[in-house]
Amino acid sequence: MNPSRCLLSLLTAATLAAQTSPEALHPASERLRAEAFRTHGAYEDLAWLCDRIGHRLAGSPQLDQAIAWAQTRMKAAGLVNVHAEPVMVPHWVRGKESAELLLPAPHRLNILGLGGSVGTPQGGLTADVVVVGSFDELDQLGSAVKGKIVLFDVPWKGYGHTVVYRHDGAAKAARHGAVGALVRSVGPVSLDTPHTGVMEYDSAFPKIPTASVTLEAATQMRRMQARGERIRMKLEMGAKTLPDAPSANVVGEIRGTGKPEEVIILSGHLDSWDVGQGAQDDGAGSMIALEAARLIQALSLKPRRTIRVVLYTNEENGLRGGLGYRDAHRAEFKNIIAAFESDSGSERIKAFSLDLRKATPEAKASALASLKKLAGALEPFGPIELRLGGSGADVGPMVAEGVPGIGVGHAATHYFDIHHTHADTFDKVEKDDLAHNAAALASIAFALAQAEVRFH
Amino acid sequence: MNPSRCLLSLLTAATLAAQTSPEALHPASERLRAEAFRTHGAYEDLAWLCDRIGHRLAGSPQLDQAIAWAQTRMKAAGLVNVHAEPVMVPHWVRGKESAELLLPAPHRLNILGLGGSVGTPQGGLTADVVVVGSFDELDQLGSAVKGKIVLFDVPWKGYGHTVVYRHDGAAKAARHGAVGALVRSVGPVSLDTPHTGVMEYDSAFPKIPTASVTLEAATQMRRMQARGERIRMKLEMGAKTLPDAPSANVVGEIRGTGKPEEVIILSGHLDSWDVGQGAQDDGAGSMIALEAARLIQALSLKPRRTIRVVLYTNEENGLRGGLGYRDAHRAEFKNIIAAFESDSGSERIKAFSLDLRKATPEAKASALASLKKLAGALEPFGPIELRLGGSGADVGPMVAEGVPGIGVGHAATHYFDIHHTHADTFDKVEKDDLAHNAAALASIAFALAQAEVRFH
Repeated sequence: MNPSRCLLSLLTAATLAAQTSPEALHPASERLRAEAFRTHGAYEDLAWLCDRIGHRLAGSPQLDQAIAWAQTRMKAAGLVNVHAEPVMVPHWVRGKESAELLLPAPHRLNILGLGGSVGTPQGGLTADVVVVGSFDELDQLGSAVKGKIVLFDVPWKGYGHTVVYRHDGAAKAARHGAVGALVRSVGPVSLDTPHTGVMEYDSAFPKIPTASVTLEAATQMRRMQARGERIRMKLEMGAKTLPDAPSANVVGEIRGTGKPEEVIILSGHLDSWDVGQGAQDDGAGSMIALEAARLIQALSLKPRRTIRVVLYTNEENGLRGGLGYRDAHRAEFKNIIAAFESDSGSERIKAFSLDLRKATPEAKASALASLKKLAGALEPFGPIELRLGGSGADVGPMVAEGVPGIGVGHAATHYFDIHHTHADTFDKVEKDDLAHNAAALASIAFALAQAEVRFH
Repeated sequence: MNPSRCLLSLLTAATLAAQTSPEALHPASERLRAEAFRTHGAYEDLAWLCDRIGHRLAGSPQLDQAIAWAQTRMKAAGLVNVHAEPVMVPHWVRGKESAELLLPAPHRLNILGLGGSVGTPQGGLTADVVVVGSFDELDQLGSAVKGKIVLFDVPWKGYGHTVVYRHDGAAKAARHGAVGALVRSVGPVSLDTPHTGVMEYDSAFPKIPTASVTLEAATQMRRMQARGERIRMKLEMGAKTLPDAPSANVVGEIRGTGKPEEVIILSGHLDSWDVGQGAQDDGAGSMIALEAARLIQALSLKPRRTIRVVLYTNEENGLRGGLGYRDAHRAEFKNIIAAFESDSGSERIKAFSLDLRKATPEAKASALASLKKLAGALEPFGPIELRLGGSGADVGPMVAEGVPGIGVGHAATHYFDIHHTHADTFDKVEKDDLAHNAAALASIAFALAQAEVRFH
């Protein structure tokens, strides 16, 4: 930056800092947007995270690397109070895994063990397969699935609807004596693409190994069963859960000039599944949170309230980052003005949704009206809806106790195609989308930092 | 079929057999279409081929199974002269293969060795990687690639444009002393999807191992190189070529009632790559050829000329089926009225293209005009273009010697997404498309069997 531009920036920042009218923030947003598209810092950082570190499951050396690297990036961006806040995280390891159809004909199956699953016995598990389309169908079969592997072949009807089969399938199958559980991958399309994700056992029933199979394999076994053919498979999974491992949330701040004790959190999660590169889930969300702060800092905009970046650990298989943050920051809740979380990919932001769990309907409406007073700050970004709705998993534990969450609602037209797969990689990220998103997040955050508004 | 319907069929068939005006064939096409949609035989057969036999590379037991099974299906359909015509085929086996990026950071790579490649030395091949975007770029580097693995990171610009890098990449890289060659998979999209396919060495240079990597991995290595990072990988391939194996083309006929020595060939290839199920390439083409004949037979339509189904072996990595058929049937060429080949998937037929290699432009125009006289037979199928163009690889050797080829031009909007991958599976096939295609092929073939037309 040359001296005259620097002076202009300082003057503008000073002027802005004195303003509380959100309409006056529009020029700041324009500058944040221009800076984002000039520097493309989120894109460069995300490329590095994906290419040089790669996937980052809780307990892995890659996550440790990412935690160290994120602190150096925060410091380089001029954030202060950069530190890691330790939490212990689950340490599940996939091990070697494979599956093969033996009857009615040999076929290789492409699987991904589900996070938290136990492994198979040494030498693998060989059993007949029973295909069901729902929990009801399973319950009707009852003890007929004893000693068998249950395959939940449930077509995609949106993530929320279908993910319950991934999460609860093993527990429900074990209840009836099944020795293994498979789930059709939770996603709308497939190029022989298995999707992993977390599952949970019911302590009342045995822990049985569980994995996802592809849409291709699930529908194939369904056809075989419909023809009356006996389906038999061999499943080998080396999965195991090791003792909890140390990890940390990464935190850095731009301290507020007027009300530093009042905090706006910008966040994503740094961990990912142990496949692909965790580009969309949630490298993108993490990097736009970091970039939003960097943009504000780079333009020497001086927020009145503190803007804090939090990159959580272990969203995927434990939420220990979000839970730990809640426990460590309870005393601060009343001063957390809003906790933004971006965790639905890298496509353009279409909405910010205010998540108030303890407010009355009237209070929610009033809070939304307050948020909408900041809409001017988003004008450079085209239509972005401000509405009530959900926020994010990591901020969830705080939000459940009354902290206002703000979900960053990205268009997610292809998000679930690659979510939790080997295909969640950097090449699917559009450079301009990241710049747009970082600047939009920076703009609304800065507007909120300047305003008098409170949502709770 | 009840007796009165049977009588009606016989009468209709007799009437049709006496007709040579193609306009009068429209009712036959309507009946073929109705029968195809009533029975969906191609769909059922393709499901069996995919689910029970699976992929079918030359030399594999699965291809042998498919050859035996296809004959039983032809006999069940009432075809006569059902037999296998032996040819020897290449016998390449993939063996165990894996690849891993070692520098600048460890990453698993999903690869598929290219058909015909040699394996790596025992213990694998570890070398630095150089990324190039074209053969020109490789030539400019020249001896700088000596001892290295060359990655051809060439974006998809249509199959014909890009496939040369898969086919010739290893030979071109070996010429400059490279010890291995990789190619970005030849396809427009990827969910971590490697595409195999055939490659060829240049006998003047060493045979080096060669494989495809995914779009994801190719663009990642490109980014690494652009950042100036050293890229080092370990490649292990157990690929080898065994002695040629016995195989066969499968043939069956509906003998012509008027001119049985004049033959219309309906064909596809029964072999596939050793990944996925060979559903689109070319199970679909094979099954519509068989189904077209079955439909004609089921309706007791009595073609004047012979309709012959030929399911070739070894299109993918040798073309020995097509070459063998040419050699064995040379004496018959003048009586092969047309050789149809369907080898571009299962999507709806949009064109039939007449491939006349030895005709003058005037003769081609005249032949096309003759083909267009049969257009009435395609009326029930919506717009299907009749034009000059290519035919297919298997009929190619005959067509090169003057036999008229007719290419079956399917819409191929998603064909190359899954072509030669683990994702070429039955679930991607639309039931109604197969019925439509089988009936359209049956209709034009039957019209041609009834007509006096000759294209050569």
